[in-house]
Amino acid sequence: MEYAAPIARLIAELERLPGVGPKTAQRLALHLLNRPREEVAALASALLEAKDRIHPCSVCANLTDTDPCAICGDPRRDESLLCVVEEPKDVIALERTHEFHGRYHVLMGAISPLSGVGPDDLRIEPLLARLKEGKIREVVLATDPDVEGEATAMYLARLLKPLGVKTSRLARGLPEGGDLDYVDEVTLARALEGRRAI
Amino acid sequence: MEYAAPIARLIAELERLPGVGPKTAQRLALHLLNRPREEVAALASALLEAKDRIHPCSVCANLTDTDPCAICGDPRRDESLLCVVEEPKDVIALERTHEFHGRYHVLMGAISPLSGVGPDDLRIEPLLARLKEGKIREVVLATDPDVEGEATAMYLARLLKPLGVKTSRLARGLPEGGDLDYVDEVTLARALEGRRAI
Repeated sequence: MEYAAPIARLIAELERLPGVGPKTAQRLALHLLNRPREEVAALASALLEAKDRIHPCSVCANLTDTDPCAICGDPRRDESLLCVVEEPKDVIALERTHEFHGRYHVLMGAISPLSGVGPDDLRIEPLLARLKEGKIREVVLATDPDVEGEATAMYLARLLKPLGVKTSRLARGLPEGGDLDYVDEVTLARALEGRRAI
Repeated sequence: MEYAAPIARLIAELERLPGVGPKTAQRLALHLLNRPREEVAALASALLEAKDRIHPCSVCANLTDTDPCAICGDPRRDESLLCVVEEPKDVIALERTHEFHGRYHVLMGAISPLSGVGPDDLRIEPLLARLKEGKIREVVLATDPDVEGEATAMYLARLLKPLGVKTSRLARGLPEGGDLDYVDEVTLARALEGRRAI
């Protein structure tokens, strides 16, 4: 005897989620069976609604239920400033700072020879097309502070240089909070290198 | 700007799952938006189907899509032997051993004064009713090997004593595999206490 078929099927579907193993899938399934039907139905409908209504913005590739997305369609945003990020979740992270008032361009990844991702797999052509419109004065390369993100930023910086557009990169240094002696040596070296007069 | 409403709603629903915080919920939502629609629809329908078709067995309270459940309805199972467990998932754990051929009774919990769970909150009345039918000769008390499980087993053992039914408890001792010096002292003490002649 294993679980009744509908439970086994639910466990199998939950196991397909990233980071969810057999034990977690079982725990989630039994938890959901204990919840009110409305709660399970709300999750099921949220899944389908998100899948059916969300698509990449035709301009920036951010995930949206309108087209263009709320940021690309907002006339108050500075259209001369463009922030290039790897993933839609990076847009949300930057928006949460309330410090950036330009627009975004999502590459949908980063250059990673080990994973077989080259420049042609990223949304670089659409980026060049946006730059050719001539309204963008500065591009902030906000790819991740890791090897792939750095490689992507360097590649784009070289590519954009002849276009005469100003390019910048997010500052590297110490994160807020914590102890100096807990900071890894690469971060500390970058913070020294980028020290600013006060 | 936060996530578009359908994504925000999906993240909120996923966050209600046990052990799923905001970051995990975001990761799961963005993962699902990247998967084919069939896969998301399969998860949504598995959720609803499990919720609609699964209910506790009217005899043993194991989760089932039939009534009685496949175990209670199987004439090849030994109806004189009854295994009492805390939760439906314990039935599955015991079934996986292929060593138990009797039937089950799920208490739906264990006595826990700290959580306000007393004997009246468990399925003890239905257990006594099954015993009164007179077919059960032995009851295996297979509650968890923790404080609540022990308290529940002791409570049931006292309750069943006057009924003249044989009661037993799962053996305590060393788990399979691993090193003796990694075993906690309570387990080791129990293993010594329960040592068997060879």
